[in-house]
Amino acid sequence: MSTLSPEILSTLEAQGIELPSWAFGNSGTRFRVFATPGTPRDPYEKIADAAQVHRFTALAPSVALHIPWDKVEDYADLRRHAEDQGVTLGTINSNTFQDEDYKFGALTHHDERVRRKAIEHHFECIDIMDETGSRDLKIWLAEGSNYPGQNDMRGRQDRLQDSLQQIYAHLTDGQRLVLEYKFFEPAFYHTDVPDWGTSYAQVAALGDRAVVCLDTGHHAPGTNIEFIVMQLLRLGKLGSFDFNSRFYADDDLIVGAADPFQLFRIIFEVIRGGGLNSPDVAFMLDQCHNIEKKIPGQIRSVLNVQEMTARALLVDREALAVAQAENDVLAANAIFMDAFYTDVRPALADWREARGLPRDPMAAFGASGYQEKIEAERVGGVQAGWGA
Amino acid sequence: MSTLSPEILSTLEAQGIELPSWAFGNSGTRFRVFATPGTPRDPYEKIADAAQVHRFTALAPSVALHIPWDKVEDYADLRRHAEDQGVTLGTINSNTFQDEDYKFGALTHHDERVRRKAIEHHFECIDIMDETGSRDLKIWLAEGSNYPGQNDMRGRQDRLQDSLQQIYAHLTDGQRLVLEYKFFEPAFYHTDVPDWGTSYAQVAALGDRAVVCLDTGHHAPGTNIEFIVMQLLRLGKLGSFDFNSRFYADDDLIVGAADPFQLFRIIFEVIRGGGLNSPDVAFMLDQCHNIEKKIPGQIRSVLNVQEMTARALLVDREALAVAQAENDVLAANAIFMDAFYTDVRPALADWREARGLPRDPMAAFGASGYQEKIEAERVGGVQAGWGA
Amino acid sequence: MSTLSPEILSTLEAQGIELPSWAFGNSGTRFRVFATPGTPRDPYEKIADAAQVHRFTALAPSVALHIPWDKVEDYADLRRHAEDQGVTLGTINSNTFQDEDYKFGALTHHDERVRRKAIEHHFECIDIMDETGSRDLKIWLAEGSNYPGQNDMRGRQDRLQDSLQQIYAHLTDGQRLVLEYKFFEPAFYHTDVPDWGTSYAQVAALGDRAVVCLDTGHHAPGTNIEFIVMQLLRLGKLGSFDFNSRFYADDDLIVGAADPFQLFRIIFEVIRGGGLNSPDVAFMLDQCHNIEKKIPGQIRSVLNVQEMTARALLVDREALAVAQAENDVLAANAIFMDAFYTDVRPALADWREARGLPRDPMAAFGASGYQEKIEAERVGGVQAGWGA
Amino acid sequence: MSTLSPEILSTLEAQGIELPSWAFGNSGTRFRVFATPGTPRDPYEKIADAAQVHRFTALAPSVALHIPWDKVEDYADLRRHAEDQGVTLGTINSNTFQDEDYKFGALTHHDERVRRKAIEHHFECIDIMDETGSRDLKIWLAEGSNYPGQNDMRGRQDRLQDSLQQIYAHLTDGQRLVLEYKFFEPAFYHTDVPDWGTSYAQVAALGDRAVVCLDTGHHAPGTNIEFIVMQLLRLGKLGSFDFNSRFYADDDLIVGAADPFQLFRIIFEVIRGGGLNSPDVAFMLDQCHNIEKKIPGQIRSVLNVQEMTARALLVDREALAVAQAENDVLAANAIFMDAFYTDVRPALADWREARGLPRDPMAAFGASGYQEKIEAERVGGVQAGWGA
Repeated sequence: MSTLSPEILSTLEAQGIELPSWAFGNSGTRFRVFATPGTPRDPYEKIADAAQVHRFTALAPSVALHIPWDKVEDYADLRRHAEDQGVTLGTINSNTFQDEDYKFGALTHHDERVRRKAIEHHFECIDIMDETGSRDLKIWLAEGSNYPGQNDMRGRQDRLQDSLQQIYAHLTDGQRLVLEYKFFEPAFYHTDVPDWGTSYAQVAALGDRAVVCLDTGHHAPGTNIEFIVMQLLRLGKLGSFDFNSRFYADDDLIVGAADPFQLFRIIFEVIRGGGLNSPDVAFMLDQCHNIEKKIPGQIRSVLNVQEMTARALLVDREALAVAQAENDVLAANAIFMDAFYTDVRPALADWREARGLPRDPMAAFGASGYQEKIEAERVGGVQAGWGA
Repeated sequence: MSTLSPEILSTLEAQGIELPSWAFGNSGTRFRVFATPGTPRDPYEKIADAAQVHRFTALAPSVALHIPWDKVEDYADLRRHAEDQGVTLGTINSNTFQDEDYKFGALTHHDERVRRKAIEHHFECIDIMDETGSRDLKIWLAEGSNYPGQNDMRGRQDRLQDSLQQIYAHLTDGQRLVLEYKFFEPAFYHTDVPDWGTSYAQVAALGDRAVVCLDTGHHAPGTNIEFIVMQLLRLGKLGSFDFNSRFYADDDLIVGAADPFQLFRIIFEVIRGGGLNSPDVAFMLDQCHNIEKKIPGQIRSVLNVQEMTARALLVDREALAVAQAENDVLAANAIFMDAFYTDVRPALADWREARGLPRDPMAAFGASGYQEKIEAERVGGVQAGWGA
Repeated sequence: MSTLSPEILSTLEAQGIELPSWAFGNSGTRFRVFATPGTPRDPYEKIADAAQVHRFTALAPSVALHIPWDKVEDYADLRRHAEDQGVTLGTINSNTFQDEDYKFGALTHHDERVRRKAIEHHFECIDIMDETGSRDLKIWLAEGSNYPGQNDMRGRQDRLQDSLQQIYAHLTDGQRLVLEYKFFEPAFYHTDVPDWGTSYAQVAALGDRAVVCLDTGHHAPGTNIEFIVMQLLRLGKLGSFDFNSRFYADDDLIVGAADPFQLFRIIFEVIRGGGLNSPDVAFMLDQCHNIEKKIPGQIRSVLNVQEMTARALLVDREALAVAQAENDVLAANAIFMDAFYTDVRPALADWREARGLPRDPMAAFGASGYQEKIEAERVGGVQAGWGA
Repeated sequence: MSTLSPEILSTLEAQGIELPSWAFGNSGTRFRVFATPGTPRDPYEKIADAAQVHRFTALAPSVALHIPWDKVEDYADLRRHAEDQGVTLGTINSNTFQDEDYKFGALTHHDERVRRKAIEHHFECIDIMDETGSRDLKIWLAEGSNYPGQNDMRGRQDRLQDSLQQIYAHLTDGQRLVLEYKFFEPAFYHTDVPDWGTSYAQVAALGDRAVVCLDTGHHAPGTNIEFIVMQLLRLGKLGSFDFNSRFYADDDLIVGAADPFQLFRIIFEVIRGGGLNSPDVAFMLDQCHNIEKKIPGQIRSVLNVQEMTARALLVDREALAVAQAENDVLAANAIFMDAFYTDVRPALADWREARGLPRDPMAAFGASGYQEKIEAERVGGVQAGWGA
């Protein structure tokens, strides 16, 4: 008898995790970006790699794009290419951190020329969304300042609201604006959207189709992230996740790698709050495979999310409610931990097999010869990367 | 010529910092509370001590009370006692952390009996406010849980809102509900109001007379507190400060002792946002003098706030705006630091003298004999403290 | 076939985790200590409770004492009492934080009278060790300062070394001095032994029988604790563990409760470095059951350590070495995680049963009636607690 | 009458702060490196820029080089160039993080070929030291791992010791090996020299001429850095400082910019421990001027160190000792703070003028035309930067 009930398996079947195109390009630290053989050289190759993850796991049906990194001549053609590979195009991510003009800000900049340029970049993103059929425009602001006194934080906040209103007004029906927050980096004194409270206050002032993106690596040390998940779901403003993991700062490691139990608690709160398989809450990855191979890194990541979702679904919520009502701290915690410590992997392997998927997607990808093929074929040209 | 202009001195003259009655009682850590000779044994003696701080500084015109620690038979009499000493009664602080019933929660408790009791405690506080003439009811919740799974964070959040609505509805005209947040402690897994975002979302749902209290020691490591000050002022929800300082957690050290430059930046944002000497923003202390003498500890604290306010008022905001507009990072920072590094103490001493106050309030208090007097007189009885 | 090989089970059989007597007394935060029915009123009752943990788990054969909390007239009698209960007396912990004299320091104090008193307290502890047959004298210093300038950190460090030398010279053959470090609390500016480096430098200057105690809750946020475990084992100076867990500061939660994967990594490094079941490395608990029941809290704790040891023993170290040698990051990590995610609990339950122990020690203790018995019997008297 | 006594001024006159050549090249974050007009294109131009800092401040008599970034054909020629500019060549910094071979380690690598290459790189550095007349070889290791299980931390530690021994044996008379530690980055799970304890243990095993480098930005959040300064001076192992400042991680901001009071406390402990103007303790900068101008950024930095040294020298250590001996916490802290709050800038300006230096070095550099000159002249070629 399987550890996982038909209801749980049915829930898991509906799960989809969006992959970021840029995860397949090279990334690194300020000290060094190490190059990897076979790295894609254009958006088409990135999508082809992302499709491999879906092929071996059935977990990653869509790919997020980053503009301008993924600009192409013909988005309809890119869309067909994706569909040919069995995936769709998802969230459009804007970029206001790699242009010389944005050295001191973009949507918050005091110079109207720069701010106008940044706003219009988002208009362009929305135009692309119309072509790709994307619903979400995700905005991460790399803006802030490095030194006290360098800038007027209040004025920037007001200009940010104004910029967002202009962008929000430009959205077409059914599209959403998703505002990400981040504790610090690349700004080292103040960041214009540093915490969920700021993101929430900014999007609440825009309207119903403006929501918050929670990146699991973007918090102060010790932050109880599942509490924020709970709160944003309660307030109806949790729009999407950027999953990754961290030991120190925004390390962008594989989701679940640093603190598996934290991932369990986060997903439990997603379930508790009705966010699992809800159209309102997008699950995405946002990681940097600096030293490990990129396609298997992404396969490992979506499997980690799936396995942890299975564990979180195992929590006996009725028994938990009873123990909580009785203030039986140890019993409640034991019910919670029992699910976490259950090994769901054999049941998931059986289930994958039953669905015509490989029992072990990591091994199956390794045996597929795809990696060797791209290493041989993708010679010459410029490898994609942050900034490519 | 004084470092401080008549305008600055006039602004400083209007400044008032509320003292907490409990700062004069004994406090300590979970390891030990060390007793101090002369410690007050009742609210009357606490107010007498607080009045000393005002007498030597003209900076501390009011005293906050903590219920039930400061319960008396006759609040009109306590009020007269305060006025006789030259001070007024200020904020009323509720207490839902020292009753056996509150072991697992109070305003968030799933047991309606306990929650009702906690709500009614706040009704009692409001009744006392009517007698003392207090405007603000400050609520700090010590509630949360220690273990994952122990409690249902979402249900607690909903019950908290319901409890606050009942309390808010009980306020009389002109009174305010001030909700404090705290990162952790005494709960070690989740805290029901852990961050400004939660406090903001909770009070925003109540109404205009519900605001946030920012305790400078209640944040995650590395948090940019002046950013939160800016944001809450911008949102019209910064109701009060609890000033203290910290190196590690909620250390409750003397304000300005751990990071003077942070205090400078905070007060600069208060000024920038119109919060200085505004009736909307109450300045309070909330500290623990575990090892130092209590009355001079409070004198030192209000002087630290005054001195730092003077420095923050010295920032040449016009020149700063020019440097910021030119993206001249080093010039802007230099203008900011120039104010911080200016020694305002001689000018403040001159000014105090001109107003009939002691040049050196610490020395003057030491020479006054008050400390020796209370050490001699306050023998017997139970010293006040946390829980007394 | 069991998940756990005979070799692993044999290793687990040798495992012993020392319990602290004070875990059975009441503890709390600076805000409140909640009392629990049935709490011991003297060292005899504490040992009786500790023996219950061993009875149901066979994992906790010894009990650490805290002087003066556990002072008795006749240690030989206490020792017999322990042996009658099936346990032995273990580490002696000194206490230099609950005497009025130690407000500003003990082994580091500039006042020779106070320092002498603190040193002699340790002599007394050594005398007790001779009577109880204890090997280890564990020293945790609560010393430090709250304000910059308050004290001369360098002078204190030199006096600490002198004090420790005197104590070390007093040890009899086979006895050890174990020096614990702690990041902060109860001192909030500087702590005299704040990190492993200081503890290491201090004990290295004493001699071979002076070693370091690593309390898992005593580090700065983000610290890689297993690295320190590795390093201290490498340097031959890891004397003992104080196990507990934390989300924020020194929360003293149940070991494994906050970050199970961290505990796994720590125990893996213990095994890697030869510290498991080594006479040189004592495994102890040091936790505070503020809101949960104390005896089952300790049972849960030793089971957590045992289960995690089983998982860590499952790591296929040969395969791991191969993957590491090939720089196959994902494969090495997968081998590591595979052990962590294996559910060892059924195999451990079978094994316990085979040894005549309860399959489910938590349930068996609950069904034993012991808790009800002590709640009925231990009425009157003063409950033990920190400071009792 | 000057705030600063002749003794203090005489001490300040002896102060020298080494500049890193790489501070004059472009730097940035993983998200973007913004280019600046006038950035040097080779080591000669870097030294010319560094010499400007010394010209306007008389505070920066030497320049540290980074190999291979600063490799030249003829070091004797580079040395003459430096001397012509009025400065000398200082510390040689090795680099084992920008070669493809070092992706998984260098001095710790399990592959003997890679480790040999890394060791020999240090031999080359020592050869260069012989030519430049440099005393110190500074080693910062970017090594570690990103995922638990990825590598064998213990084996790496042993190989590190072996590598260092080979390098140490290669030093010629009077040369020193200086080992830097860093909490994290670019490795995100474990770092091979993460803390002062590890650096201390490694260099203590080498010999007298191996010492520790303390970079003020390389600690866990909340770390009391001045305590480490005190301890390393006490142990005779503080070899050098890398000064910078931080709010979050290794932000590499201008020294004194984030927490001036921390810098004050650090320098006070340097003075207390005999490390000021001691040949044993080198003062260096290590910062990244990502958005501000580089030469004035360095001028600002050395002035910050000088001003803070002046303040720290003002502490009335006799009065402080008295207050400390009396356990007068508030008095001791007040004496300490009095020095910090004293405005030493006017006295320093007077003193500079008296020595033929500009009163305001920032303004004087701005007026010198040097910046405009290099912006006009340094067109074409490749700007220096990390990795250039």
